[in-house]
Amino acid sequence: MQVTILGAGGFLGQKLAAALAARGVLRGQEIRALHLVDLSAPPAVAADFVITTRAADISDAASISQAIPNGTDAVFHLAAVVSGQAEAEFESGLQANLMGTLNVLERCRALETAPVVVFSSSVAVYGGEIPQPIEDWYLLNPQTSYGTQKAIGELLINDYSRKGFIDGRGLRLPTVTVRPGKPNRAASSFASSIFREPLQGDEAICPVKPESPMWVCSPRAVIANLLHAAELEAKVWGENRCIALPGLLATIGEMVEAMRRVAGDEPVSRIRWEPDPVIQKIVDGWLADLRPEKATKLGFIADHSFEDNVRGFLEDDIRRD
Amino acid sequence: MQVTILGAGGFLGQKLAAALAARGVLRGQEIRALHLVDLSAPPAVAADFVITTRAADISDAASISQAIPNGTDAVFHLAAVVSGQAEAEFESGLQANLMGTLNVLERCRALETAPVVVFSSSVAVYGGEIPQPIEDWYLLNPQTSYGTQKAIGELLINDYSRKGFIDGRGLRLPTVTVRPGKPNRAASSFASSIFREPLQGDEAICPVKPESPMWVCSPRAVIANLLHAAELEAKVWGENRCIALPGLLATIGEMVEAMRRVAGDEPVSRIRWEPDPVIQKIVDGWLADLRPEKATKLGFIADHSFEDNVRGFLEDDIRRD
Repeated sequence: MQVTILGAGGFLGQKLAAALAARGVLRGQEIRALHLVDLSAPPAVAADFVITTRAADISDAASISQAIPNGTDAVFHLAAVVSGQAEAEFESGLQANLMGTLNVLERCRALETAPVVVFSSSVAVYGGEIPQPIEDWYLLNPQTSYGTQKAIGELLINDYSRKGFIDGRGLRLPTVTVRPGKPNRAASSFASSIFREPLQGDEAICPVKPESPMWVCSPRAVIANLLHAAELEAKVWGENRCIALPGLLATIGEMVEAMRRVAGDEPVSRIRWEPDPVIQKIVDGWLADLRPEKATKLGFIADHSFEDNVRGFLEDDIRRD
Repeated sequence: MQVTILGAGGFLGQKLAAALAARGVLRGQEIRALHLVDLSAPPAVAADFVITTRAADISDAASISQAIPNGTDAVFHLAAVVSGQAEAEFESGLQANLMGTLNVLERCRALETAPVVVFSSSVAVYGGEIPQPIEDWYLLNPQTSYGTQKAIGELLINDYSRKGFIDGRGLRLPTVTVRPGKPNRAASSFASSIFREPLQGDEAICPVKPESPMWVCSPRAVIANLLHAAELEAKVWGENRCIALPGLLATIGEMVEAMRRVAGDEPVSRIRWEPDPVIQKIVDGWLADLRPEKATKLGFIADHSFEDNVRGFLEDDIRRD
């Protein structure tokens, strides 16, 4: 079993690599090699099998063909230009997220072994003219370029799977929080910052109202679900290989109160509430009330409470100076 | 007002060109030039304004950039590799239908005048894991490569419109019958052949059961709706620029009986019923029960009865030897 992670330099890619190293097995087979790929060569992880690291440009077909070596059995495609950047730089999003995903799929088709491909889509595919709560059979009517490009990726994952070119699985990730590391250009970046920075002793700005609802999950749940997606048999997926993941529906205010229950008043006092109409408008456009019945039936998991998300951050990810 | 029709050599393209020539006006402005583009240079139509004809390859960005001249105010994008061919020749469909549409949109973006773009999508976007009747907010879960590529086109039309690069409108065409001309590689080709050939005195084979339901409309209704789509103001479209068109839900058997009522027993006797399991399976995968409420609200039309479709063919299109 050879595995390639695209976007392996990101926090999910790194956690996934560590999880694969720890288990050593995927789909009942021993992992012989794990290839970590990102725009810059990502950090390696410690493992009992071969780890390679490589820089590759997903928008370049030749580059990505080299990065997914012959013999690859499973690809985790987590690489993307994030939402805020894809909106500000239309061309970058188009090249990385649309053409990039097409390059990945064309490379996998050329392998002629129909590798398992796990694709990270996003709840950003939801928006526009659909009612809530959102059922599994509701339209993807994204209102951002990032969401559009992810929705296109889903359609391609389905078609390449139907044709037998790959064995694809797509997961619409909730907003992942509490995310370790630094703020990024995702429009949802604040949804981790307002917990991460205060828990680490720093101030953070919350640009949206406490009443703003979000559909969220922890890094732990995402990693478990990415692995579960790879493990499931092809036949259980039916005619749609792409699903919304379970999550928690909570307002920003409710999540802040959860942090208070876990970590006391002090971190909460480090949040500065400075409404930003631009970010508020984006967040208001996100539809947060999902009914991911298919995912639940297939055994994907959600967190029990946002308190667990906060505890998970404290256990796994808090910066240790 | 300068108008470009891509796919102008097809029967809809030719009818649309004739309709534009007849009215001479679009969006309240006099048409000064109409550019007809197809893989082979399409036939011209008679008009009181400039008509150009040109061969262009939609999958080639440079070719399509030349074919959509500076000063274009409206583009009707009807060009496609049809369903049967896109399924048999994956690469052709991908290049023409996905990359081709992207080339068209990128060219329109480069014009910097946000031209009106009317895109012909298809009910082939419907399939898979959605219930019927199909509401406007239901998932596009296509089960063919053609349907996948059309669904991707819709997402792009929406995103390019949202960004202000174009003023896009997408119409999911029902199965158009009775279509003039010859059988083609569309999987739905038989749905015109079984009326067209008998009405013209020839035999035709019906490869599906009479109970098979279809969502259909006449060429007249499609042309009226394509023009209506171009005429509507941008603001009425809301957050989803792509809609299912009204149609008639009828079984093959009901449509054949409608032909009998209009044209007597003789044409019906020229249909040979020879079930083809391959085509039956494709047709069984088509979801035919739609509730296109948004289109109806926006003033798009359906045919009154399939008898009208038959009469329309006899009046407009029957081969006159």
